[in-house]
Amino acid sequence: MPEPLPPALLIGGGGLLFGAGTLAELGRGARERGLRRVLLIGVRAVADVGLLERAEQALGAAGVVHATLLAADGEPTDAAIGELVAAARGGDFEGIVALGGGSVIDTAKVVGLLLGAGGSTLDYVNAPFGRGAAPPRPPLPLIAVPTTAGSGSEVSAVAVLDLVADDVKTAISHPLLRPALAIADPATTVTLPPAPTAAAGLDVLAHALESLTALPYARRTLAPGAPRPAYSGANPYSDALCEQALPLLARGLPRAVRDGGSLDARTDVMLAATLAGLGAAVAGAHAGHACAYGVASRRLTTAGAAGRPVAHGFAAALMLAPLLRRTHASDPARHERAARLLDVDGPAAEAPDHPREPSSELLPARVAALIAAVGAPSGLRELGFDERDVVPMAELALRQERLMAGAPMPLGREQLAAMLAEAL
Amino acid sequence: MPEPLPPALLIGGGGLLFGAGTLAELGRGARERGLRRVLLIGVRAVADVGLLERAEQALGAAGVVHATLLAADGEPTDAAIGELVAAARGGDFEGIVALGGGSVIDTAKVVGLLLGAGGSTLDYVNAPFGRGAAPPRPPLPLIAVPTTAGSGSEVSAVAVLDLVADDVKTAISHPLLRPALAIADPATTVTLPPAPTAAAGLDVLAHALESLTALPYARRTLAPGAPRPAYSGANPYSDALCEQALPLLARGLPRAVRDGGSLDARTDVMLAATLAGLGAAVAGAHAGHACAYGVASRRLTTAGAAGRPVAHGFAAALMLAPLLRRTHASDPARHERAARLLDVDGPAAEAPDHPREPSSELLPARVAALIAAVGAPSGLRELGFDERDVVPMAELALRQERLMAGAPMPLGREQLAAMLAEAL
Repeated sequence: MPEPLPPALLIGGGGLLFGAGTLAELGRGARERGLRRVLLIGVRAVADVGLLERAEQALGAAGVVHATLLAADGEPTDAAIGELVAAARGGDFEGIVALGGGSVIDTAKVVGLLLGAGGSTLDYVNAPFGRGAAPPRPPLPLIAVPTTAGSGSEVSAVAVLDLVADDVKTAISHPLLRPALAIADPATTVTLPPAPTAAAGLDVLAHALESLTALPYARRTLAPGAPRPAYSGANPYSDALCEQALPLLARGLPRAVRDGGSLDARTDVMLAATLAGLGAAVAGAHAGHACAYGVASRRLTTAGAAGRPVAHGFAAALMLAPLLRRTHASDPARHERAARLLDVDGPAAEAPDHPREPSSELLPARVAALIAAVGAPSGLRELGFDERDVVPMAELALRQERLMAGAPMPLGREQLAAMLAEAL
Repeated sequence: MPEPLPPALLIGGGGLLFGAGTLAELGRGARERGLRRVLLIGVRAVADVGLLERAEQALGAAGVVHATLLAADGEPTDAAIGELVAAARGGDFEGIVALGGGSVIDTAKVVGLLLGAGGSTLDYVNAPFGRGAAPPRPPLPLIAVPTTAGSGSEVSAVAVLDLVADDVKTAISHPLLRPALAIADPATTVTLPPAPTAAAGLDVLAHALESLTALPYARRTLAPGAPRPAYSGANPYSDALCEQALPLLARGLPRAVRDGGSLDARTDVMLAATLAGLGAAVAGAHAGHACAYGVASRRLTTAGAAGRPVAHGFAAALMLAPLLRRTHASDPARHERAARLLDVDGPAAEAPDHPREPSSELLPARVAALIAAVGAPSGLRELGFDERDVVPMAELALRQERLMAGAPMPLGREQLAAMLAEAL
């Protein structure tokens, strides 16, 4: 007698399945989309905890043939993607399954793009770094199974990657990059260690707060003849989802870091990641993410900051307080509501040395409290940066034109440098 | 020099475009999905106000070849759908564009299903009325352009239709029925007369309130071996969107009925319809919609209630107060929050003859106030029904198993009959 299916959410006409235990439905999801032969892209860490084997079993049980390749650890690079594409060519795959964090899903997006549409990575990378071309043929359909709760890549039309030759972090953005199916199973995250749990969860915080504070969609003006951008700006759809995500995250993330095996906490955090991911995929992150990319790109170029790569979620979270201080004036009520939504333990005790904190500090204070609660670094200095990095990082951030266009006010090089200095 | 594109929202990886003026992007949307030859299905009312011509121009400007067919007025029937399919066969269409209200979009879904997958309507109609089969081949891709703000059909995977031989209103439900693209342009609704504006808008109210009060997804249990149902039950995604929709609707709908030319009011109402439609497509409506289908089916069978068909939105709205009185106990706080969200004019003045209204009456009172504010019928009796219709309608409602499964408590024939009697 077959087991009953676990409770789950089917969102977007079945394009997103959310619920503990839904990884077991991977094979059926592939079959329903006509995929009988797929490339499964994983990473060492998911193989080590047995998730890759479970994905392979779910595919096999539904009669889906697969070949497995492991992506390199760390952020995707054009070079590593090229190696995977070379290994996969001739495999006659009908689709791709990505099992891992945002880096693995982003890698799989570009692999599927190059296998399906041909061409080279730089053909598709956003201007000014690449040519920003539309794919001449559709990418291979992708099924994304996130094993971290953070990136939102499973519902986004964007792949973030490092260009090795240019020492820069950038992205490919096209509606066809959106996975055909996302399976968000919180049970896949119970083995994730505290530090990556915290980093991924703080990326959720950045997605929610940047989406809420982006330039409102009705106020965006496009140049004559310009195509519709991938990101619309703040709007009632993403507002509702991002506000719903905040208390789930504030309650769940500290517990998921402290007690990783708690499926309740993991479910709250993955639900927050899903909701904020859906919202951010419409609204778009803006200057905070641009600075976080600047931080990552600077890490690529500088020997002084060498060593382990900066977790994107930590860099993005550290940019929030400097950003939100500046965006507060664009819509104070919205910022203060977000602060209340994060304040799940009741009204925050006022610090005795700040008896009359300005309202623009309410949200930065809640952000700092959550960063501290999950044991994340309190400044970029802890990640190996210093004053000499500020101006180069600001210049790299400014080049993220796609993101900077979403800020609610013009932010020039000096303002970005001041924000980065505050984040030290 | 080309005009700049108007501000708009791109939701769900580009699957939903929302904004005034976006009808002009219809042709580009079709081209981007590889459709060069489409069947355009409209209806007399949209031709009369010039919308059909604007859709044809938008397709032509993008080089998309089209043939146009008009659907019959009123709710879709299997017979009328068969006639459209016969007329379209041999046309070698790559996709369908539906321009009209929910009935037209639902008609186009079934036409595309039969043209793409073959078979007969009854093969696909939900059990117990039909065989509920999955399509053996994909339907033709559908672009849905709603010209009323209400049904949510443009983002749903369901087509509602009348079976003439069985005198019953039922549905076809499958993820592949979801339109590939929805273009929700509030400017298309400024010519809609007050009565259909009110009826469509009250359907939005029913979508939002039934989604909010459906059995929570985590409490749904499935039978062993049963497939995942199309509707998940109440959940944080649909909760957020449906709560966001309520004040937009409460503020916008009375004004859109009174001053149809107000693009601001039309935008609020269509945004509410879109948000509640996205939410309801996940959560699912339940016993209120089941009763509304019972009302419509009874109208089909009885000579006594002959004449103009009952507008679905009016029937669905009249079932809300009887339903919400009964569901209140399942989650009082949620019901009372919904009442506050509808109360956009500040706390409602207490009626002098109800000085201590029980809290279970707060939401029914707000629903009744909105029904009255848009000049809709205050009871089923005004629509031609009487006590003799109550039991037959309850029996027809009970047969809507797909919907009844979403109610937050068991509701049998007697309870449904009592609800319908209250709605008289």
